[in-house]
Amino acid sequence: MALPSHIRIVEVGPRDGLQNEKTFIATADKIELIDRLSATGLGTIEATSFVSPAWVPQMADAAEVYAGIGKTPGVAYPVLVPNLRGYERARAVGATEVAVFTAASEAFNRKNTNAGIEESLARFAPVIETARADSVKVRGYVSTVLGCPYQGEVPLADVVRVARTLHAMGCHEISLGDTIGVGTPAKARTMLRAVAAEVPMDALAIHFHDTYGQALANILACIEEGVAVVDAAVAGTGGCPYARGASGNVASEDVVYMLQGMGIETGIDLAKLIETGVWLAQHLGRPSGSKAALATTR
Amino acid sequence: MALPSHIRIVEVGPRDGLQNEKTFIATADKIELIDRLSATGLGTIEATSFVSPAWVPQMADAAEVYAGIGKTPGVAYPVLVPNLRGYERARAVGATEVAVFTAASEAFNRKNTNAGIEESLARFAPVIETARADSVKVRGYVSTVLGCPYQGEVPLADVVRVARTLHAMGCHEISLGDTIGVGTPAKARTMLRAVAAEVPMDALAIHFHDTYGQALANILACIEEGVAVVDAAVAGTGGCPYARGASGNVASEDVVYMLQGMGIETGIDLAKLIETGVWLAQHLGRPSGSKAALATTR
Repeated sequence: MALPSHIRIVEVGPRDGLQNEKTFIATADKIELIDRLSATGLGTIEATSFVSPAWVPQMADAAEVYAGIGKTPGVAYPVLVPNLRGYERARAVGATEVAVFTAASEAFNRKNTNAGIEESLARFAPVIETARADSVKVRGYVSTVLGCPYQGEVPLADVVRVARTLHAMGCHEISLGDTIGVGTPAKARTMLRAVAAEVPMDALAIHFHDTYGQALANILACIEEGVAVVDAAVAGTGGCPYARGASGNVASEDVVYMLQGMGIETGIDLAKLIETGVWLAQHLGRPSGSKAALATTR
Repeated sequence: MALPSHIRIVEVGPRDGLQNEKTFIATADKIELIDRLSATGLGTIEATSFVSPAWVPQMADAAEVYAGIGKTPGVAYPVLVPNLRGYERARAVGATEVAVFTAASEAFNRKNTNAGIEESLARFAPVIETARADSVKVRGYVSTVLGCPYQGEVPLADVVRVARTLHAMGCHEISLGDTIGVGTPAKARTMLRAVAAEVPMDALAIHFHDTYGQALANILACIEEGVAVVDAAVAGTGGCPYARGASGNVASEDVVYMLQGMGIETGIDLAKLIETGVWLAQHLGRPSGSKAALATTR
């Protein structure tokens, strides 16, 4: 059990977090959020999503947000794109990293995107091809890797197949997401091992939601397996659209607190991160979803 | 890494949880809480504390609570006793298991009990001796094993010494408590290993507070080391007297959810446990501290 000495946190709060929050955040505040995050030492901040505004109203200002943020040298600002149209909108404002997404659950993908998994993958082919020509890095998200709200169990073979396909298509990194937060450590470990048998571990990231309070334990199990990229959202934003009032993404602050306590380097200033999360929670009108923040700021 | 196949949860909500809650719970409701918990399959429920009512007003009705609860066959109902006087009060109402407590931090023990650690241990000697003569089992709590709000770091040697002493004095089980919830998995693992080098692992229990969101990850690290007794409190009661608004004990529901997901037997009916926690949270006038409860009941 050799733990990684350094872990890269991919901050997904401005995108995955906010897109599931009901409180509308002004464009200027989104820009300030990302600029504050850029000052914490984070190396990767997913800035926004170029999905259709009809699908995700909170992300309708994607172009303004991306154009408005300070691009700190050394910090990557990937953006989510659902298709070639989204990719072109992202490129028009200068995005240099993008992310595509599909579920491992056929039922979830159909409900969520109105397309089967194969259809989603086919839709990404021209995005990834164009991105390669543009020297734009593409991250691939695989959601519902440990369970689906519609079909329940998601066969491990489906997770492996989708992850392997995205990697083979040219995604530099595959983020494995427990979208509904139902996973537990042994299942998370088994899932990661199965994927890592087909995709190199250094091309994998993990993405846990804390719906059932399991996220940090799952992250611990996975970093014990050697994964060194962890998605998280400041202030634990995101909620869970399938369980109102429940928790969202694992809070970046709590992940950093754990890693620092274990002597694992993240390059992040925890106090600044907590301060940013408290600032965001105020704008959302609710307490922070980070327990480390609640413990240190009251 | 051979995980235990069965883990015993020691439910501490009615005592450690409630004693740190500001909302006063009526005696009849405490009795109903314990009776409800008894119906979930829990094997051990810490029922109350025979400390001085001047110290802990919430526990002033210890005798009435203990006398009033249904004693389900096969379920143990230990009670906390600070000294021989408390032991005698507990015995007067028929308690057959008790628990004594000291900190591993000298500074904490002095602040919390107005006595040094040696003085506390000396005070327990007649309790443990009398209990042995009465065939009453004595559990020993060691608090502040991963940090202290007054002295900061707590030397590992102090934790080991106090745990070893309590065990040598006759405690059948030693519960190692991260009272302020500051620990992280590597530190928890190191601490447990050091104690287990001197006290048999099957005489050890772990007791985590979720103040920084680390409890489940710490529990995972410790069960990977082979500990098979875990303290937890339904609805995550307890708060943290050193950080207002922060989280309390790790929620029993979330622990059971994790263990069940890992195929580890607890004998507990999770749905009934969640129902009991929701009932308790209503009486406390706040949302449950269990994320598994929030995810499944909204």
